[in-house]
Amino acid sequence: MKCRKCGNEAVINMRQHKLALCDEHFLEWVPEQTQRFIEKYKMFTRDERILVAVSGGKDSLSLWDILLRLDYKADGLYIGLGVEGGADYSNQSHEMCVKFLENFNPPKEWGASSQISNFNVTADEGPQTANTQYLIPKLHVVDIGKLYGETVPEVASRTMRGRDKPCSVCGLIKRHVMNRVARDGGYDVLATGHNLDDEVAVLFGNTLTWNAGYLVRQAPVLPADKPGLARKVKPFCRFYERETAAYALVRGIEYIYDECPYAEGSTSIEHKELLNQMEKDRPGTKLQFYLNFLRAREQGLFADAERATRVELNTCEKCGQPTSAPGLCAFCRLWERHGDAAPT
Amino acid sequence: MKCRKCGNEAVINMRQHKLALCDEHFLEWVPEQTQRFIEKYKMFTRDERILVAVSGGKDSLSLWDILLRLDYKADGLYIGLGVEGGADYSNQSHEMCVKFLENFNPPKEWGASSQISNFNVTADEGPQTANTQYLIPKLHVVDIGKLYGETVPEVASRTMRGRDKPCSVCGLIKRHVMNRVARDGGYDVLATGHNLDDEVAVLFGNTLTWNAGYLVRQAPVLPADKPGLARKVKPFCRFYERETAAYALVRGIEYIYDECPYAEGSTSIEHKELLNQMEKDRPGTKLQFYLNFLRAREQGLFADAERATRVELNTCEKCGQPTSAPGLCAFCRLWERHGDAAPT
Repeated sequence: MKCRKCGNEAVINMRQHKLALCDEHFLEWVPEQTQRFIEKYKMFTRDERILVAVSGGKDSLSLWDILLRLDYKADGLYIGLGVEGGADYSNQSHEMCVKFLENFNPPKEWGASSQISNFNVTADEGPQTANTQYLIPKLHVVDIGKLYGETVPEVASRTMRGRDKPCSVCGLIKRHVMNRVARDGGYDVLATGHNLDDEVAVLFGNTLTWNAGYLVRQAPVLPADKPGLARKVKPFCRFYERETAAYALVRGIEYIYDECPYAEGSTSIEHKELLNQMEKDRPGTKLQFYLNFLRAREQGLFADAERATRVELNTCEKCGQPTSAPGLCAFCRLWERHGDAAPT
Repeated sequence: MKCRKCGNEAVINMRQHKLALCDEHFLEWVPEQTQRFIEKYKMFTRDERILVAVSGGKDSLSLWDILLRLDYKADGLYIGLGVEGGADYSNQSHEMCVKFLENFNPPKEWGASSQISNFNVTADEGPQTANTQYLIPKLHVVDIGKLYGETVPEVASRTMRGRDKPCSVCGLIKRHVMNRVARDGGYDVLATGHNLDDEVAVLFGNTLTWNAGYLVRQAPVLPADKPGLARKVKPFCRFYERETAAYALVRGIEYIYDECPYAEGSTSIEHKELLNQMEKDRPGTKLQFYLNFLRAREQGLFADAERATRVELNTCEKCGQPTSAPGLCAFCRLWERHGDAAPT
C-alpha cells in the first residue's frame, strides 16, 4: 500500500476514507483534520485557554500534543483516581503524563521549558493569564485519594451508585474535578480525547435504550451549563481509535496501553466489538452512524426533546457547581456520609 | 423445562419474558397476547373489516389464523409476484395460502365454508358488507404478471429503481396493490404479519442512517394517509420470529419455509444476525430496543420532526392513490415506459 500523497510505503490505510498515508503525511494529516473539526464545530479559538483532560492514554496525550503543535493555549489535567489493578494503573497513567510533558519539545520561541505543578485546589491561584505570547504548557495534577481521603474505588465501595462497579462514581468525580479546575483556573474550554469509537459506542448504547436526555446531549461541543463554566469539546470525535493509536505510535508518544481494569466486560466494550464487526463488513459504518446522527439532530430530529429535557440548574450549596436538584450536588453528597465534608 | 401454567413439558422458552409454555398453553398465549396488542395500540375493533396481507409464510398465515379465531372479520390478500427462484417461490407461496383456507375449520356457527375468489380488480365489487354475524373468510388473489403483463422481477429489470435488486420495486407494487384492494373492497384496516425481528431490523437500519422520515413513521399502527384509505397495522410486532414460527408449527399450519430468494445478502438480514447475537448475550435486547423506541416517540422525542416530515399528499391522476409529488404516483410511473398504461 502506497501513500496517496508521496507514493512511499504507507503506515496506515483508512478504508472509510479510501486513504493510505506514509508516516510523514499521516503526522501532517491528523493535526490538519483536528484543526478542521475544531473550526467546523466551533470548538475554540487561539485566544481561549483550554484544559485538556489527560489520562495517560493514546487519545488524550495525542490530543494535547496536537493542540500544542497547532499553537493552542492548552494545559493538561491529570486526575489520580487511585485505581490499582494488576499494573498499578493510576500510577503508570500519571507517569505517562509527566513523561509526555518532559519529552515535549516546545518550539524555541516559547522561551522556557514546560512546567509541572501539583494543582492545589485549596490555594487561590485565581485565573491565570498569559504573560507571553505563548503559554507554557502546564500539567495540573489532582490526586483524589490525597485530596478527599479516599480513592475512587474506596468511595465507590461504600455507595449505592458504586455498588457493582466504580465506573459511575468515577465519572461523577472526574466531571466534578474537571469542572472545578477549569473554573478555578479560568479556562474557557475543557477538551477530552474521546475518539469516534468512544462516541459511537455511547451513541449505540443510548440508542438501544432510546434515552432522550442522553441522546440530545451527545455532541462534539457541549455549551457551558452555566455562565462562567467551561464548555466541553471533543476534537477527536471523528478519528477512529486505530488512527489516534497510530498517531501516538508514529509520533513516538509513550502511553499506557491497558484499559482501566474496571472497564472489562462493560456493555460499551461489547458494543465496540459489535460495531467493529459491522465496520469490517462495511467500512465507514461507524463514521456514517455518527455523522448521520449529528446531521439528523442539526436538522431538528430532536428539537422538541431538546427543549423538553432542558432543566433549570441550581447551584450546589457547598461547591457552587450546577446541579439539577436543589441543595447539594451528587458529588458533594458522595462525601456526606463520610463525616468530613468534601473540600470545595 | 416445564410449562409455567401446568407443569407439563414446555415446547418453548421465551427468555425475554422468563416464560416457558407447553403446546396447549402456548396456543392460548399467542392469541391472548395478540388481542392485548390489538387493544393496546388501538388497531381495530370487531366491527371493522380487516384485510390481511398473506405471503404463505409463517407470520402472515398465523396472523390470519389468530384473527379468525379471535372472531375478527379478516379476509386474506395474496399478491402473486412472479418470483421463481430455485423452489418456484411464488407458486408455492400461493398454494400455501389456498391450503390454509381449505384446512381452516370455521366454527359451526358461521354456517358455510370459506371461499377463495380470484380478485378481479377491474370489476366493481363495491364495499362488501356482512350479511351474517360472521363473515366467511375470503382470499383475494392478485397476480401481478397476469394483471399488468409483467412479473415483479421483469418490471424491476427495466427500471432504475430495480437495477440491482427487485426489492424496492416489489415493495412499491405490494403497497399499491394492498391499498387498492383495501380501498376497492371497502376494508377499514390492512394488517401485515411483520414480527418483532422484522421491525427491529428495520428500526436498526433506520437508526444507523438516522433517517428522520422513516423513523417517525415506524409504528404498530399507521393512520390512513387519506380519508377513506385503510390504516395499516402490525398485530405481531411484539412477537419474536421464533414465536410466530413455533405457533405455526404447533398449530399445524403449513407454510413456505424459504425466504424470498432476493432477500439473500440484504442488509436487513445482516442486521438480524447482529441483533440475534446481542439477544443471545442479553435476552430481551431486541424487545427492549423496540419498546424503548416506541416509548421515546410517545414521549415526544421526535415531535418536531413528526410535524416537519408531514407532507401534504396529492392524488395520483391515474390511480387515485396518494402520492407526494403531483401528477402520477411512483407505481403508475413504473408502467409508463411500458407502452400500455397500467390498469387502475
